[in-house]
Amino acid sequence: MTFYSKLEQHYQKLSRLAHLNAICGWDQAAMMPEGGNQARSEAMAELAVMHHEQATAPELADWFAQAERETLTAEQVTSLKEMKRSWQINNLLPTDLVEEKSLAGSKCEHAWRSQRAANSWHEFSLNLKKVVELARREAQIRAEATGLSRYDALLDLYEPGMTTAELDKLFSEVKSWLPSLIHQVREKQGTEKVSTPAGPFPIEQQKSLSVDVMSKLGFDFHHGRLDVSVHPFCGGVPTDVRITTRYDENDFTSALMGVVHETGHARYEQGLPAKWRGLPIGEARSMGIHESQSLFFEMQLARSEPFMEILAPLAAEAFDRSNDSALSSANLTLLNTRVKPGFIRVDADEVTYPAHVILRYEIERDLIEGHIEVADIPELWDKKMTEYLGLSTKGNYTDGCMQDIHWTDGSFGYFPSYTLGAMYAAQFMAAIRKEMNVDNLIRERNLQPIFNWLDKHIWKKASSVSTDKLLIEATGERLNAEHFRNHLVERYLKS
Amino acid sequence: MTFYSKLEQHYQKLSRLAHLNAICGWDQAAMMPEGGNQARSEAMAELAVMHHEQATAPELADWFAQAERETLTAEQVTSLKEMKRSWQINNLLPTDLVEEKSLAGSKCEHAWRSQRAANSWHEFSLNLKKVVELARREAQIRAEATGLSRYDALLDLYEPGMTTAELDKLFSEVKSWLPSLIHQVREKQGTEKVSTPAGPFPIEQQKSLSVDVMSKLGFDFHHGRLDVSVHPFCGGVPTDVRITTRYDENDFTSALMGVVHETGHARYEQGLPAKWRGLPIGEARSMGIHESQSLFFEMQLARSEPFMEILAPLAAEAFDRSNDSALSSANLTLLNTRVKPGFIRVDADEVTYPAHVILRYEIERDLIEGHIEVADIPELWDKKMTEYLGLSTKGNYTDGCMQDIHWTDGSFGYFPSYTLGAMYAAQFMAAIRKEMNVDNLIRERNLQPIFNWLDKHIWKKASSVSTDKLLIEATGERLNAEHFRNHLVERYLKS
Ligand SMILES: [Zn+2]
Ligand SMILES: [Zn+2]
Repeated sequence: MTFYSKLEQHYQKLSRLAHLNAICGWDQAAMMPEGGNQARSEAMAELAVMHHEQATAPELADWFAQAERETLTAEQVTSLKEMKRSWQINNLLPTDLVEEKSLAGSKCEHAWRSQRAANSWHEFSLNLKKVVELARREAQIRAEATGLSRYDALLDLYEPGMTTAELDKLFSEVKSWLPSLIHQVREKQGTEKVSTPAGPFPIEQQKSLSVDVMSKLGFDFHHGRLDVSVHPFCGGVPTDVRITTRYDENDFTSALMGVVHETGHARYEQGLPAKWRGLPIGEARSMGIHESQSLFFEMQLARSEPFMEILAPLAAEAFDRSNDSALSSANLTLLNTRVKPGFIRVDADEVTYPAHVILRYEIERDLIEGHIEVADIPELWDKKMTEYLGLSTKGNYTDGCMQDIHWTDGSFGYFPSYTLGAMYAAQFMAAIRKEMNVDNLIRERNLQPIFNWLDKHIWKKASSVSTDKLLIEATGERLNAEHFRNHLVERYLKS
Repeated sequence: MTFYSKLEQHYQKLSRLAHLNAICGWDQAAMMPEGGNQARSEAMAELAVMHHEQATAPELADWFAQAERETLTAEQVTSLKEMKRSWQINNLLPTDLVEEKSLAGSKCEHAWRSQRAANSWHEFSLNLKKVVELARREAQIRAEATGLSRYDALLDLYEPGMTTAELDKLFSEVKSWLPSLIHQVREKQGTEKVSTPAGPFPIEQQKSLSVDVMSKLGFDFHHGRLDVSVHPFCGGVPTDVRITTRYDENDFTSALMGVVHETGHARYEQGLPAKWRGLPIGEARSMGIHESQSLFFEMQLARSEPFMEILAPLAAEAFDRSNDSALSSANLTLLNTRVKPGFIRVDADEVTYPAHVILRYEIERDLIEGHIEVADIPELWDKKMTEYLGLSTKGNYTDGCMQDIHWTDGSFGYFPSYTLGAMYAAQFMAAIRKEMNVDNLIRERNLQPIFNWLDKHIWKKASSVSTDKLLIEATGERLNAEHFRNHLVERYLKS
């Protein structure tokens, strides 16, 4: 057996361990009664240890060296590169740093739950300092091994190939037009009349509607399910994708848009090519590309006026309200495109969301590079919120720099993915519009050509090309913010 | 660290792997969409390999030898003995035999699904011959290591301490009175008028009723759940017990009695002592004792007249049928104690069930000991069915010797557990009746003293004493068939 084949088998084995983790993790979030948590956490920690042992098995170094000398097809070369990337990510950190990180992260996150509620920045900052210190050590090690800058070395974990130089360019462009765009949209929307549909919307009916919409969006129920969890997510494995949502009896749109969002993530997973199953080359390209698929479904498709013409009658039927004008497609379109600056990122609309992301990016970049310290965060947060969204968070840590979970467990470099996803999605849609009349297709209830495009240009490529190449092959150009801007202007100012 | 402690940690680790297996197995049966099956089976097979590697780790032999020389408390001595028993079970068979068994079992079982439907005994028997041959090899190896006879060595896997000599004695006693008892019961019931409640009984209402009854039976929903699967079972782990049922819109009693049965299994698991969690000493004593708990709940408690007085109004309320005389406690009692000889074991009532088990026991015992061959099975089956239940299965393999799944995968030695469970349950109930007025307690809706007795005498003992000792400590005598007979006479002839 070639060393390349041995590596393939090894990574398929790792993916089987990841499968067990995905299902037990889904169960923990969606099914498990509370009393099962301790034993579950212990069982999953054991699994993580076994995964780590396998992912860092000492023989792998030799296998990679040998495989690199074997005669391989171009596809195998790429597959090998992706296996090696995965191996290096797992191998670079010394075990004691991994453990220290895990402990500090758990501690910080656990305390954060109550500290956030109590607005206790000082206490929180003591834990966060430790987390940042360890993240800096990690960044230093990864930077030395990859030749990247420290923050870029972390960014690379989530968005391979993306750099601070690139992000600074993209985000400064967004910053140059975003505040004034928000202002204009707010002015325009001030004169629009929108009615809020009055609840209750029974959960069972919301569930039926969700399943119906998922089917229309091509979700394959033979290879996945929809359930409920406190924090909605897309989990499971490509042949069995588990998405979740959270229903609110008084508002059906948030759960429904959440379901559409997760359906986008799910279709990417379900669409990954079977031939590379279990191998890194067959996995989703990056967090940003993943988010581009969920945002394509949610923002590019579902919140558009033509799509609301599909959704509105489905909703009216599901809730048996054929005469409720609040459920008209016109009103639902207005409702689902409201723009309002707010404190909380996860509640933000499509237009203000990038401001939240850019703010976090700028702070975490400088934090990891050592240009600022944890103690500087609140003031910077307040300054940037005021500058980008006109809102001050002075003294309000709960709704300011303590609102997110990401930093508590040391996930620095993740935030940019959200806005990269929005930009990728807009660029993909612009490319699709050059090939077909999207609005007509939607009005004809014929989404298949759109899905085919995504399948061909994104899903079936998995990680076989770089993000850069994927963008160029799919859209003819590298990522740029122009399409995102055009999309926002078109939707929020012209219509 | 002592070697004893090392062993404890090792077995706790094994129990964490078993946890992952239990949850992913539950998911596969109760949640997984069909398209997820291949990847799931591969992931679980990988887990089985890892479990086997850990369970047969080469250092364990030395650890056991060292631990046996350490100064241990009496409890530790027992715990060590149970760990060693588990280790020996896993270690005795050579790897190639384990693999051959697994392959032959899968092949036989897979083909059996269609062969059973087609009544194709000849084709089936070719696969079964291979399975029996491997089971005989296994039995031979286990017999040599334990000093037991071949069949006893397999029996010991499920019912440690039980022997053919003992079973022959118990079962020949049952055989001496069972056929005539069945005859008498049939005569008596021939004059009774029973009405079948008319459906439909909506699934949602059956589900509510099930949950309600489970709560009254003390099922802890903080540490477990109820779901649906094709073949009902009790799975999960002690702190998170997953039971399943299968609803039929036209008949609520079968699902409900199934739920009560699985609740008995579940309470045993939930009641196992926390101090021994993850260790063999802390596991259920045997398959027979496990079945005794489910049958205690189902047969001793739920199908009794006083309990039907609790169930009937709950059912009437759940289905909103306060005036349906078919849902009266008197009618439901009659309905749930019907006796009718039939071909199918899993559909059998409490009285005819032992006949099905004894028949299988006698055949598998002789098969493993080499006194008969696979080709002899159909004739023996027909002869025994005719003798015990007055039904001929000549030429009808589908409803005869091909009806069960157990032999297809080589689980010889398991069948006796069902009837042992029924006898243990009757003996436990007889002992409880000496201490308290069970019928009065049920009528007062005060089941707690009964549960406390089970908890003290069975659940909290786990595997810390032998089955024999457990019986003697709980009931003052060794297992005997007399209590089971008394129970049947009392319920089916006297009332
Ligand atoms: Zn997302
Ligand atoms: Zn049972």
